[in-house]
Amino acid sequence: MGWTLERGDLVDLCRGAAFLGTGGGGDPYIGRLMVEQALDEGHTVKIIGLDELPDDALVIPTAMMGAPTVIIEKLPGGEEAIRSLHRLEAHLGRKAFATMPIEAGGINSTMPLVVGARLGLPVVDADGMGRAFPELQMETFAVYGVPGTPMVITNEWGDATLVECHDNMMMEWLARGITIRMGGSAYIAEYAMDGKTARRVSVPGTLSLVLEIGRCIRAARQAHRDPFAALIELLPRTPYNFGRVIFEGKIVDLRRETTQGWAMGRARIGAFSGGAVMDIEFKNENLVARVAGKVRAIVPDLICVLDHETAEPITTETLRYGQRVKVMAVAVPPIMRTPEALAVFGPGGFGIDEPFTPIETIA
Amino acid sequence: MGWTLERGDLVDLCRGAAFLGTGGGGDPYIGRLMVEQALDEGHTVKIIGLDELPDDALVIPTAMMGAPTVIIEKLPGGEEAIRSLHRLEAHLGRKAFATMPIEAGGINSTMPLVVGARLGLPVVDADGMGRAFPELQMETFAVYGVPGTPMVITNEWGDATLVECHDNMMMEWLARGITIRMGGSAYIAEYAMDGKTARRVSVPGTLSLVLEIGRCIRAARQAHRDPFAALIELLPRTPYNFGRVIFEGKIVDLRRETTQGWAMGRARIGAFSGGAVMDIEFKNENLVARVAGKVRAIVPDLICVLDHETAEPITTETLRYGQRVKVMAVAVPPIMRTPEALAVFGPGGFGIDEPFTPIETIA
Repeated sequence: MGWTLERGDLVDLCRGAAFLGTGGGGDPYIGRLMVEQALDEGHTVKIIGLDELPDDALVIPTAMMGAPTVIIEKLPGGEEAIRSLHRLEAHLGRKAFATMPIEAGGINSTMPLVVGARLGLPVVDADGMGRAFPELQMETFAVYGVPGTPMVITNEWGDATLVECHDNMMMEWLARGITIRMGGSAYIAEYAMDGKTARRVSVPGTLSLVLEIGRCIRAARQAHRDPFAALIELLPRTPYNFGRVIFEGKIVDLRRETTQGWAMGRARIGAFSGGAVMDIEFKNENLVARVAGKVRAIVPDLICVLDHETAEPITTETLRYGQRVKVMAVAVPPIMRTPEALAVFGPGGFGIDEPFTPIETIA
Repeated sequence: MGWTLERGDLVDLCRGAAFLGTGGGGDPYIGRLMVEQALDEGHTVKIIGLDELPDDALVIPTAMMGAPTVIIEKLPGGEEAIRSLHRLEAHLGRKAFATMPIEAGGINSTMPLVVGARLGLPVVDADGMGRAFPELQMETFAVYGVPGTPMVITNEWGDATLVECHDNMMMEWLARGITIRMGGSAYIAEYAMDGKTARRVSVPGTLSLVLEIGRCIRAARQAHRDPFAALIELLPRTPYNFGRVIFEGKIVDLRRETTQGWAMGRARIGAFSGGAVMDIEFKNENLVARVAGKVRAIVPDLICVLDHETAEPITTETLRYGQRVKVMAVAVPPIMRTPEALAVFGPGGFGIDEPFTPIETIA
C-alpha cells in the first residue's frame, strides 16, 4: 500500500512542485532541505493514494502560509506545522490518520512530507489547489463544501491560535492577519476531513505528478533534449493536458513588495527580438500574463516562468532583473474549471477584470 | 453574600466607570444600555467581593477590546462576550464560577455585568487595571504572574479565535491584530484564574468604587455643591487617595485617529485666561499631561478630563473642539505603583521618555 519517497527523488519532486506552484508556494530548496533533514534523522516518507484512505479516516492537511519573500529569510524549524496538527487533533479529540498538502507548489508540497515523516503518518497523494494559490479559501476543498475551520496557526515560538469561522473567506481574512502579526509566515493545519470527503474534493495524484514533471525536466537535460519540448509532450498524458510556451525573453522590469501578507508585484519580460513585452502580475503566484494589454494566460491556468535554458522554475520571490526566461502556460484539470471553482479562484477572485479563457483557446 | 445592582444605580456606576476609565474603556452610555436591556429581560446583576470567592472557583474575566472610536459605531449585540466565555469554558473543560472586569473603565466596567446577568453568574467587585489601559498585558493580573492566555476573541458573526501564547506581550500583539481584522472591536475572555489567585492579583473593590464616585458627583450637583470639591474630598477615603484639578480651560486643538487598533491622539487645552496650554496625549486612555513641555500628570496615575461645570467625564472619542473642561489627576493605589507594575504600564510601557512621578509629588 502506497510508496516510499526516495531521497534521490527529492530534487525532482521539488522542481516539479515549483513548476505547479506557478511562481508561488515558497522556495522549494528550503522544502527539500527540511525533508532531507527528516530522512537523515531516520524517518521515512510514505505516500498513499486517495483510494487507500478508509472512508472514516481523519485527514489533516498541513502547510506553511505567508509571503514567500519572508519565508526565504525566516526559515522553518520543522516542528511548527507538527504543533499545528497536534493542536487541531486535540481540539477535534481525534488522531489524524494522514496528512496532505493544501496546495501543489513549492514548500507546501514538501511541508506535509516533513510532518508525515516525523509523525509516522502517510501523506496523501493529492491536494486542494492543483497548483498554488495565495489565499486559504482558494481550495477545491472549499469549493466543494468543506469548511476550512477549525484551523490552527502556529509560529516558531509555539504561539498558537485556533480559528473557528462562519465561512472560509473570514478564515482567510483572520488567518492572514494572524500570519502578518507572526512575522509574515506561519504554519497551519486546516480543512480536516474524512477519507470519503477527501476523495470527493481533492485534486488527485499531484505529488506523483510533481515528481513526474521534475523527472521529465531532468531527463531531458541529461539527454541533451529540449526540456520544454519534453514537458509539452508529457502534459497531455496528465490531467494538465495542454502546455505551451507563450513568451520568451529577458526580465526588463520588476516590481515586488511584501505587503498585506503577500509578495505582490509585476514582472515585465522583453522579447529578445525587441518590441513585444509581456507583463505578469503576481500575488505570491503568477495570476495573469498580458502582451500589449491582451491576456495571454490567466488564473486558474498555470503561468510558469522557467529558466530559458534549463526549464528550472523561477518562483516570484527569486525573479531578478536580467533573467532569461520562457513562460509556459498550462491548462488545469476540469475540477478546477467548474463555475463553482472559477467563482472562488478564477480572475474575479483576484479582482482581475478579464474573464477566464482556457489557455487552449488563447494559444 | 454579595449585593444586587439596582437599575437606579446604573447611571452613577457608568459615570464613575468613565471617571476611572481616564478617557478610555469605551462609551459608558452604550455599556449602560446593555445592562438595562439585560435587566429589562428579567435578569439580575449580582456583585460579590473577592473575599467571597472560594479558593478553587474559576473566574473568567470578560471584556470588549478595540478602539473606542469604533465601539460607538459598531455596537455590541450583547451575546459576543458570552460566546467568548463559553468557548473558553469549553477549552478549559470547566464552568466559570464568576466573571470579572479586566479594567475599571467605561463599557468594560459594564460588559461583565451583562455577561453575569445573562448567565446568572456573579461579578467580582475588582479588576485587573484599577483604571483603563489600552493593552492586554497592562494588567495587575499579568504583573503578578497570571498568564493571559488561553484567551478567546469573538466577533458579532460568532467567529472565534482561541489564542495561546508564550507571553502576555505576544497575546496583546496577536489579539490586537485579530481585533483589527474583526473590524476594530471584538469581545474577549482571558486571564482565567482561581479565586485564591484573583485575591492576590486584582485591584479590589473597583465596581463599588466607581458607583461611589458616580454617586458623589451626582449628589454634589443635586446639592448645588461643587462636584470637583466633592471628589477631592471623597478620594482620600478610597485607595485612590489623592485628587487634584491640575488645569482648566477650553479644548483648542484636537488630533485623533483610529490607527493600529486604537484611538490615538492629542488634545490641547487653552487656559481661559490665555497663555498657558496643556497637551494631553492619549492612546484610548489619557497617558500624559504636559504644560510647556513639563509633565503635570503621567501614567499610571489617572488623568481625567471632566466637563467644566458638571464634572461629567469625557472619554477620548467624545472630545470636541471648544469643550470647556477641568483636568483632574488622581493617584492610583500602591499595587499599581510597584516597580513590577510600572515596568508594564508605567510611562516606558507607552514609549514615553519621562519617568513616573506620583501626582502627589508633582501637584
